[in-house]
Amino acid sequence: MSPLIAEFVGTALLVLLGNGAVANVLLARTKGKGADLIVIVWGWAMVVFVAVYVTASFSGAHLNPVVTVSLALAGKFAWSKVPGYVAAQMLGGMAGAFLVWLAYRQHFSKTDDPDVKLACFCTAPAIRSVPHNVVTEMICTFVLILGVLYLASPQVGLGALDALPVGLLVLGIGISLGGPTGYAMSPARDLAPRLMHALLPIPGKRGSDWRYAWIPVCGPLAGGAMASWVYMHMH
Amino acid sequence: MSPLIAEFVGTALLVLLGNGAVANVLLARTKGKGADLIVIVWGWAMVVFVAVYVTASFSGAHLNPVVTVSLALAGKFAWSKVPGYVAAQMLGGMAGAFLVWLAYRQHFSKTDDPDVKLACFCTAPAIRSVPHNVVTEMICTFVLILGVLYLASPQVGLGALDALPVGLLVLGIGISLGGPTGYAMSPARDLAPRLMHALLPIPGKRGSDWRYAWIPVCGPLAGGAMASWVYMHMH
Amino acid sequence: MSPLIAEFVGTALLVLLGNGAVANVLLARTKGKGADLIVIVWGWAMVVFVAVYVTASFSGAHLNPVVTVSLALAGKFAWSKVPGYVAAQMLGGMAGAFLVWLAYRQHFSKTDDPDVKLACFCTAPAIRSVPHNVVTEMICTFVLILGVLYLASPQVGLGALDALPVGLLVLGIGISLGGPTGYAMSPARDLAPRLMHALLPIPGKRGSDWRYAWIPVCGPLAGGAMASWVYMHMH
Amino acid sequence: MSPLIAEFVGTALLVLLGNGAVANVLLARTKGKGADLIVIVWGWAMVVFVAVYVTASFSGAHLNPVVTVSLALAGKFAWSKVPGYVAAQMLGGMAGAFLVWLAYRQHFSKTDDPDVKLACFCTAPAIRSVPHNVVTEMICTFVLILGVLYLASPQVGLGALDALPVGLLVLGIGISLGGPTGYAMSPARDLAPRLMHALLPIPGKRGSDWRYAWIPVCGPLAGGAMASWVYMHMH
Repeated sequence: MSPLIAEFVGTALLVLLGNGAVANVLLARTKGKGADLIVIVWGWAMVVFVAVYVTASFSGAHLNPVVTVSLALAGKFAWSKVPGYVAAQMLGGMAGAFLVWLAYRQHFSKTDDPDVKLACFCTAPAIRSVPHNVVTEMICTFVLILGVLYLASPQVGLGALDALPVGLLVLGIGISLGGPTGYAMSPARDLAPRLMHALLPIPGKRGSDWRYAWIPVCGPLAGGAMASWVYMHMH
Repeated sequence: MSPLIAEFVGTALLVLLGNGAVANVLLARTKGKGADLIVIVWGWAMVVFVAVYVTASFSGAHLNPVVTVSLALAGKFAWSKVPGYVAAQMLGGMAGAFLVWLAYRQHFSKTDDPDVKLACFCTAPAIRSVPHNVVTEMICTFVLILGVLYLASPQVGLGALDALPVGLLVLGIGISLGGPTGYAMSPARDLAPRLMHALLPIPGKRGSDWRYAWIPVCGPLAGGAMASWVYMHMH
Repeated sequence: MSPLIAEFVGTALLVLLGNGAVANVLLARTKGKGADLIVIVWGWAMVVFVAVYVTASFSGAHLNPVVTVSLALAGKFAWSKVPGYVAAQMLGGMAGAFLVWLAYRQHFSKTDDPDVKLACFCTAPAIRSVPHNVVTEMICTFVLILGVLYLASPQVGLGALDALPVGLLVLGIGISLGGPTGYAMSPARDLAPRLMHALLPIPGKRGSDWRYAWIPVCGPLAGGAMASWVYMHMH
Repeated sequence: MSPLIAEFVGTALLVLLGNGAVANVLLARTKGKGADLIVIVWGWAMVVFVAVYVTASFSGAHLNPVVTVSLALAGKFAWSKVPGYVAAQMLGGMAGAFLVWLAYRQHFSKTDDPDVKLACFCTAPAIRSVPHNVVTEMICTFVLILGVLYLASPQVGLGALDALPVGLLVLGIGISLGGPTGYAMSPARDLAPRLMHALLPIPGKRGSDWRYAWIPVCGPLAGGAMASWVYMHMH
């Protein structure tokens, strides 16, 4: 499997299973309707574990543009490969969001609340406020990237043995810092599915909240850059 | 332990503990009555982990006809062994379902709802619709088999070290894609227990919903075949 | 650490943390009051993991008379060591139950329901019926001991690397087969704490339900013996 | 990374993610509001896992003054290094508490109950009683330190491979013994954030409950010393 296909498949899997967990808990008449928060955080954690495990040996399992850029900033990944990786991740995120819609199509039809339908694609803040939301996404992603940098081997990325630690790190972050903004931490998990929400013919959908869309891109990039800076000065 | 006995024992264990988790949460007057979804998905995940761990060195721990057929399609398992494996898995699934009934016999008697009793044997869709239900079972099983193919070593199947990744993969799938149809993904987990439901003298039982029975057989087989095709063309 | 001290410490830890989880969920005014079933099953699972992990290299981490007897029946443990192991386990179970009472003393005082107080020491069936309760305890323990026998190395018992599989096996059994009788599976976890319930000066306590006390001893022993028999004839 | 910086970063991470989990479940209008106890105990467990995993190779991952003092008492750590470690841990705990406040700032403003705000910094007993609360903190910490002593290698502390066992041990302790006092077990997790609560300009905050503050310091130190004594006499 070439690195770019691995990034595409891994990110598609990530968004399919991650957003699938949200759909199972939030959409009408599913078997998981109304389940506890623990179900969603374990869903995202296992998804990260599985996607990293399967793709690590092919691409280093970045699966998130912020990971790719932060590894490049820290001198652990070639800048020339960044655009291809990011493109594969964004297309993968869109493919994953498409498959969630396919698997839960009936349940999207039976759900009335348009906010709930949007939540199966991208994040929204619990309390809307640009500076606070940016700061929270920065802190989340700072923790994620600092962890990834200490795990990642030089010039490559993550290995299969890093899959469980990274998955459990995402479990911890989701439980601890997901409260205010839903721990997006990645444009491939937020912006790419948001695009699919705009494109797909979902009955009774609302606007894709483009006003908020830049926050889960810029907050994570800033947090990741901070983590790279701290890593380089402390290592 | 011969491979066929291992497949029988492993699949019996799988269905005993997996369907036991459903019985604990759904049947009347159990200690787990009304527990959160997280209990059922962890139940199935741990069951897969344990059954794979115990049987891997004897049979490669297929424990599911779709795994066996997909490995054969991908050229990783001899076609001549397929019929024996599938027969052992189906008999194991029936034995496991029998033991669930034995362990929860009083609780079957105290439960009024015949749908709940059937749910302790086999899956049913949240919203009945042939094309949507088939597609969802295809997607679930596609993800499962793609994961198994990347984990499985050639000509054998799964090893003991694959047990935790596969169990956690099933945890992720259950959380994320179990919402619409209950992630059957296997005739040994759905058709075989459904047969036991028809055969066992359960007081106040309903029909075994044979009209739906082909979907958790054909959907998973199609999804598994797709995963084998993708695997062979990407590897 | 001598093997007998290890069995004493390990079993005390097992009962302290396991029954502590029950106390946290059931007793009045604790921080865990009314938590979901998932908390109790994870509590017991982690407790088994920790106790096996710490004691494996000293005693083989039996921590349960049924494990000791079944290993002896299967020819994997010397009969001459059985009485010492069982005595250490029973004393450990009593010490652990004493520590639960010490840690939760105020909460025992604030709890009105005498059944709940007893449940912090030993199991009770969801629906009382001698044959059904015995059969369920047999099936639970059969699964536990079969798993342990396939994990245990000859003449010793469990190693530290078996701790996580055994803990997750107990998680699976608790979720799947704990519904009817509460998966006692061990006299050191049921009979020993029951004795402490009879001895301790707990305000407003009820009788220690001695009429039921033989079932979580004899059912598990019978299930363990069956597992040993199956193991010896299939291996 | 120098050992003292590692202890600072690790303890900051520990308190950020651990107290973040509490904030997510307790504060007003978060996405985790009202989640089950299982979320908090998994949060603390994963946090311990991640913080130990990242810092083990640099400092031995004590991350708790009681661990440092107990290792010194057991002859496994040089007394001369104790003051530096403890200072780094206390400063780390304060930094982590500051970051929780930063990430959840809006939610602190929207929360009315001043007890809830304090609970996002430090522990409080379920039923206030000096002797009982001290005894419970002693028992919790005794179990923690005994586990750590059997895991820790001489003169160093914990390694990366000990991260998962220690995290799961903390999961077990939280479930089982967290009921009466909230398993503080560490001044860096209780006293340091309590100081931040006193210093930070949180709207509508109450007093920092200094009357209780000595208990989660002295109880854990006593429990840790007991564990060191038992360890030295049993090893």
